Amino acid sequence: MPADQLVQNLESALSKIPLIDPHSHIDPLNPVSKSLDDILGYHYYTELAHSAGMSHAPLAKDVPPRDRVREIVRFMDRYDNTAQYGWFLDIARTFLGFEGTKITAADADKLFDAAEKTFAQSDWEQQVIKQTKLEKIFLTNEFDDPLEWKRGLSGAGRGRIEGPGESSPTPAAPTVSTAPRQAAPLDPNVYVPCLRTDTLVFHLDKPETRRRITAFTGIEVRDAATLRMALARIFLHFTRNGAKACAISLPPTFHPAPFDDEHFYEQMQFHDFHDLASGVFWLVAESCRDFRLPFDLMIGVNRRVYEKGVYQGQDLFDQRTSLLQYKDLFNAFPSVTFPISVLTSGQNQELMAYSWIFPNVLPNAHWWYSNTPPFIKKDLTERLTAVPKTKLIGYYSDAYKLEFVKPKYGMYRRILANVLADEFVRPGVLSETDAVALGTRLLRDNVKEVFKV
Amino acid sequence: MPADQLVQNLESALSKIPLIDPHSHIDPLNPVSKSLDDILGYHYYTELAHSAGMSHAPLAKDVPPRDRVREIVRFMDRYDNTAQYGWFLDIARTFLGFEGTKITAADADKLFDAAEKTFAQSDWEQQVIKQTKLEKIFLTNEFDDPLEWKRGLSGAGRGRIEGPGESSPTPAAPTVSTAPRQAAPLDPNVYVPCLRTDTLVFHLDKPETRRRITAFTGIEVRDAATLRMALARIFLHFTRNGAKACAISLPPTFHPAPFDDEHFYEQMQFHDFHDLASGVFWLVAESCRDFRLPFDLMIGVNRRVYEKGVYQGQDLFDQRTSLLQYKDLFNAFPSVTFPISVLTSGQNQELMAYSWIFPNVLPNAHWWYSNTPPFIKKDLTERLTAVPKTKLIGYYSDAYKLEFVKPKYGMYRRILANVLADEFVRPGVLSETDAVALGTRLLRDNVKEVFKV
Amino acid sequence: MPADQLVQNLESALSKIPLIDPHSHIDPLNPVSKSLDDILGYHYYTELAHSAGMSHAPLAKDVPPRDRVREIVRFMDRYDNTAQYGWFLDIARTFLGFEGTKITAADADKLFDAAEKTFAQSDWEQQVIKQTKLEKIFLTNEFDDPLEWKRGLSGAGRGRIEGPGESSPTPAAPTVSTAPRQAAPLDPNVYVPCLRTDTLVFHLDKPETRRRITAFTGIEVRDAATLRMALARIFLHFTRNGAKACAISLPPTFHPAPFDDEHFYEQMQFHDFHDLASGVFWLVAESCRDFRLPFDLMIGVNRRVYEKGVYQGQDLFDQRTSLLQYKDLFNAFPSVTFPISVLTSGQNQELMAYSWIFPNVLPNAHWWYSNTPPFIKKDLTERLTAVPKTKLIGYYSDAYKLEFVKPKYGMYRRILANVLADEFVRPGVLSETDAVALGTRLLRDNVKEVFKV
Repeated sequence: MPADQLVQNLESALSKIPLIDPHSHIDPLNPVSKSLDDILGYHYYTELAHSAGMSHAPLAKDVPPRDRVREIVRFMDRYDNTAQYGWFLDIARTFLGFEGTKITAADADKLFDAAEKTFAQSDWEQQVIKQTKLEKIFLTNEFDDPLEWKRGLSGAGRGRIEGPGESSPTPAAPTVSTAPRQAAPLDPNVYVPCLRTDTLVFHLDKPETRRRITAFTGIEVRDAATLRMALARIFLHFTRNGAKACAISLPPTFHPAPFDDEHFYEQMQFHDFHDLASGVFWLVAESCRDFRLPFDLMIGVNRRVYEKGVYQGQDLFDQRTSLLQYKDLFNAFPSVTFPISVLTSGQNQELMAYSWIFPNVLPNAHWWYSNTPPFIKKDLTERLTAVPKTKLIGYYSDAYKLEFVKPKYGMYRRILANVLADEFVRPGVLSETDAVALGTRLLRDNVKEVFKV
Repeated sequence: MPADQLVQNLESALSKIPLIDPHSHIDPLNPVSKSLDDILGYHYYTELAHSAGMSHAPLAKDVPPRDRVREIVRFMDRYDNTAQYGWFLDIARTFLGFEGTKITAADADKLFDAAEKTFAQSDWEQQVIKQTKLEKIFLTNEFDDPLEWKRGLSGAGRGRIEGPGESSPTPAAPTVSTAPRQAAPLDPNVYVPCLRTDTLVFHLDKPETRRRITAFTGIEVRDAATLRMALARIFLHFTRNGAKACAISLPPTFHPAPFDDEHFYEQMQFHDFHDLASGVFWLVAESCRDFRLPFDLMIGVNRRVYEKGVYQGQDLFDQRTSLLQYKDLFNAFPSVTFPISVLTSGQNQELMAYSWIFPNVLPNAHWWYSNTPPFIKKDLTERLTAVPKTKLIGYYSDAYKLEFVKPKYGMYRRILANVLADEFVRPGVLSETDAVALGTRLLRDNVKEVFKV
Repeated sequence: MPADQLVQNLESALSKIPLIDPHSHIDPLNPVSKSLDDILGYHYYTELAHSAGMSHAPLAKDVPPRDRVREIVRFMDRYDNTAQYGWFLDIARTFLGFEGTKITAADADKLFDAAEKTFAQSDWEQQVIKQTKLEKIFLTNEFDDPLEWKRGLSGAGRGRIEGPGESSPTPAAPTVSTAPRQAAPLDPNVYVPCLRTDTLVFHLDKPETRRRITAFTGIEVRDAATLRMALARIFLHFTRNGAKACAISLPPTFHPAPFDDEHFYEQMQFHDFHDLASGVFWLVAESCRDFRLPFDLMIGVNRRVYEKGVYQGQDLFDQRTSLLQYKDLFNAFPSVTFPISVLTSGQNQELMAYSWIFPNVLPNAHWWYSNTPPFIKKDLTERLTAVPKTKLIGYYSDAYKLEFVKPKYGMYRRILANVLADEFVRPGVLSETDAVALGTRLLRDNVKEVFKV
């Protein structure tokens, strides 16, 4: 996509819009990187380096960060064609003073040193937020996250799930520093809690999950009634602390279904809490209804497909899945908004059509394996020409560190500018100004309206 | 897609071709709109307005048409990004003297008044046909449609199915006037009957269907032999009255199969005519063979997915379906031509490959959820580079009122002109003249040859 | 895709790269055509002509080649829009002195005569190889192919499978001459054996297969142990004779699985060797591991869907398949490289994602129904922006005669040049020189590295 004058104008206008990022894995107490190892420890880079031939060795805990970075950068000449490499190049140029057009093994030390110095600045978080024009960003919080930072309290005792690979034993431990940098973020309003419910829905059969529920809510779950009470306390805790969404990731075969109380009792008492996911999910949807939270569904992921993959680099999918599996859910909860992310571009037409028909179904950004330019361009174009524009949530960063918000949104804005130019401005459907307004709607207005943020 | 000179030339040349539209839901006795309510009552607009937040209230029977139109137009600023809105804008500009580039709530009354006046002209039907360069258009006729207008008789007692939502109870009643405007169309030759067989195949277990069969054919269906006789009378009636195709829409799970006479007898006598769809379908295919009618298959629709959707806005799909389910059918009926429409662009490669291999399988236009520019462009390009050009039926309008034929074909011609330019003229494969000839084949020649019209 | 200056430069540079074609059905003893009948007997032309209306009659064995060619050419005006016709036009212009831009019925005799003369040249094979810049080309060899030509011996007694339709009874016999032209190819190093294992895996229940195994290896297969021994002898024979890959084509439903020895014994002794495919496949994978051969998987083909199709024109597919079916295989054989071809573009995102995650999974070219420009462009763009570039095997010809390598690679290079221009050079990501290097990697470097050739 050559950037002609029209596309440049649109991209430039879109770049001025303050961002509200509706999904990330940012830790509000450690929102930015402390070293280049935090940047390149992101699973996209460890995955690609490993896929291109790097062993697990450099990812071991005891390897010095500088050595690990050298190794991941050394393999870049095998994956410097990818969009993910493009994000890193953008980070190096924007934040680390890199002036070249290509990063090679020879740059590793220089970049590592620049990062050490840059990231050590006391106002680094504020600098990144400012350069990114980031107004707010949603988090991913475990159900028993105390969210104390929202009230200016210490961050001790927090739980937090780690995203795609959260349910996987860690083959190579995460390399991210875990010590809290500060007692609370400088501006807690930037960070918006989001209740992630994978553990509740899929791991209630683990005694540890039930122990955590009891510890957090004071309720011992032993039937549907106690589970409802526990969920109510969790949702109350989250909404009181400013949560704006509930979220979950789901396997391709998942099928939500209401269970009657007797069935819950039976499974809990006599079958060790097994096979309850569909029914627990339904109760979570009821809580979303009662507490008026949108319920983000991220559909299609199979966990641990590549068993010896790097940390968070083990999950894949099965293209054979359908939104038809959610028919009863969409019909039963007309007042719950379901922003939906699908893992495959092949399912985008379903997402588009279900969003065109169901008032409570919305297409939500471009997730994971569909978060590369060709898929974004295709899926965005399909949605933009058939789904009411007020229902399109354009993008989220899914970032673990704030430094990634800028390059990821930058990639999206470039594609958005091209699509607006090709589909709306050049054919005379919209003026340049109206096209920017449409882009703003996708980038910001709809996030504000849908999540009431 | 910017309209450069080449594309403009191609589009202009293609616009001169008289149309033969091989699939619509036009009522030959009420082919054109009487008010703007007939235009905006089209399910695309009620669906999009409802999906974007409009309640069911404005769709109630007792709401004055002007109020309903105001409400649907009021919601347009939420869906004016869609291709469907584009059709309406085209109608407003072509037929209603609208000169703006954007329709807003403020335009509703003006457009309503213009429509009242315009549509009241005694030769409105002829005007639309002329402006559309419409030579012929296929209808959708219930099996017991007397087709009296073909013989200049009164239209009383006709049955007619209503398209996508025909099998759904009506949540908000259709707003289309049903009183016949005239005893017969001015030129019956414009309208080509098409036997729609959904009711016969999928609702034979309803006593009402069997009552209608008996009333229409004089035959009481009680086994395979009487069903064959009834079908023969129906097909005879249709072919004698100029029908040129048989058609049906099918769910994603459908699997045609020959049943033996004993099985028919068993199910009819002892199981209330249940589970006969696969076998009845097979007998319909036999009738197509015997009466030499092409059999249009429209594959992939699940009825009533959104139970409280607007009239005709309840149906969706499951992407998991395959043309392999039709393997036995295609092999068993080599002399029957099967023009096939698929609901998802994801199935287009199957359709393309099956058409490349089976002499009796043809890709038929761009249906419903795939009838928006990105899908048309993709599916058309894929077909044009791999399926014999004599087998490609380019487009049909699927319209309920004649005013929609022009904007829908207009959209298609723009895309066709772009694809011909990009894939054939610019790379030097075809001259401009030859590209127009190829486009003419898709738009008109193949319809004439395949349907012998 | 208009060929502007940048695209022309890239295409021109890519055209200079000597080719190593990693998959074909070339017979090294009859690598080139002897008549135009050898060219137009290629299943793509017989399929398209038949699909467009040609009967089976011209394909009968006793029809004179000239008459058959006339008939296939006569139908070209029905399929001259296809990419396959484009290959033939390229062959006619490159090799047969044709100077027009369109081939019609009137050209059949002239082309037939030109071919007679041209193909009779004693150095025709060398001419084609030179014009094609073909350095090496992989073959498709049955498990009991003696590969004597590799050692300068006579070609007598060779077996060879025929590609897509190999398991199908021949409705119209292949028209290709089978008499060996020479005792061995002039340069055996051009031809690289590849062990095709469809027969071993899917037809072990046929006594004829077991008879052939015994005849070739001296081992009578009656349990897992003897099967392993037979496989070891076959793999030893192939690797000693320069084989660089093992290959198989698989139906959409296939699911590899390890069988225990008892299960093999049970099925072999008491169930006529039935239902062993998953387990035999697993043993073949073990042999690939032990003999260090990449294992080409060609996933998705259903054999004999169109039962009366032309020779090799009977196979289609079911889009409902997933690489998840291969999860256990990819995990169990980390040291085996699996270059994978998928039949549908819809599965490309799975292939891309699995290649991004699994170090041993690679996307392999554009196969069969996905080997037309729109699918190549889409699939290539998706892969190029997300999979490490060192893992992308760009293309193979799948050719039966050497004359097809040039037009097929020509088509691919045109698309590759366009994708490199649009995705890398124009957005400023790569210089023209670096883009050519990336293209060279896909066209040649990766083939050398992956197959160690």
